[in-house]
Amino acid sequence: MDCIFCKIVAGVVPSYKVYEDESTLAFLDIAPVNSGHTLVIPKKHFADLEEISGEELCKVMKTVKKVGKAVKNNLGIVGYNVVSNNDPIAGQIVPHLHFHVVPRTEKDDFKAWPQGEYGEGEAEEILKKLSII
Amino acid sequence: MDCIFCKIVAGVVPSYKVYEDESTLAFLDIAPVNSGHTLVIPKKHFADLEEISGEELCKVMKTVKKVGKAVKNNLGIVGYNVVSNNDPIAGQIVPHLHFHVVPRTEKDDFKAWPQGEYGEGEAEEILKKLSII
Repeated sequence: MDCIFCKIVAGVVPSYKVYEDESTLAFLDIAPVNSGHTLVIPKKHFADLEEISGEELCKVMKTVKKVGKAVKNNLGIVGYNVVSNNDPIAGQIVPHLHFHVVPRTEKDDFKAWPQGEYGEGEAEEILKKLSII
Repeated sequence: MDCIFCKIVAGVVPSYKVYEDESTLAFLDIAPVNSGHTLVIPKKHFADLEEISGEELCKVMKTVKKVGKAVKNNLGIVGYNVVSNNDPIAGQIVPHLHFHVVPRTEKDDFKAWPQGEYGEGEAEEILKKLSII
């Protein structure tokens, strides 16, 4: 078992557990972007969103909801981000699907990524390729 | 109906639809951080993750999975981020729950938020407040 998150699930590597049920685990990120930054994972190993089934993903998201609520109710936080990085190119470091729940504060000053706009006809071109309707 | 996303669902405001089913809609973000940046929403109005039921959230996430797959298969993208900003403090602009699917490229150079670390005993203190085990 080379996966650090599988080792955390198995209890071989310790973690600060925020929540646990039969299918999912939530624990503190030890390199938090803000205090209380929590990771939510399925206990079974799935590398990413492509690998996990819809059913298993539902369970993970129900835990994300619980953790988000706890962040607000228990830490006095007003809002948070839910983030999943899918593939190393998107910043995924551990190849075991995980959702970050990141508490936000007035003071943190994190910036959103810069937004652009489509030129004439560009959105139509992208849509032709991307649409799955 | 003041909600822009509800107007998009109703067809009163046009959108570039990527995917649609009975409960969810996916459409291009018109201010993309990268080409193909797509928003996935429940058709019913829920402000945020606290308001939406677990069941409805499952439907939204199944659409997120579909859109992520289409981004990879149809746009030649290797990876993507899934992001939901919960509350204005976290960058939520439209108060109708939505998940961003953001295609990533080698060239975009988007930076992750800076990670910190807990001082002696800090993680334990946070966990005492946050834990819902």
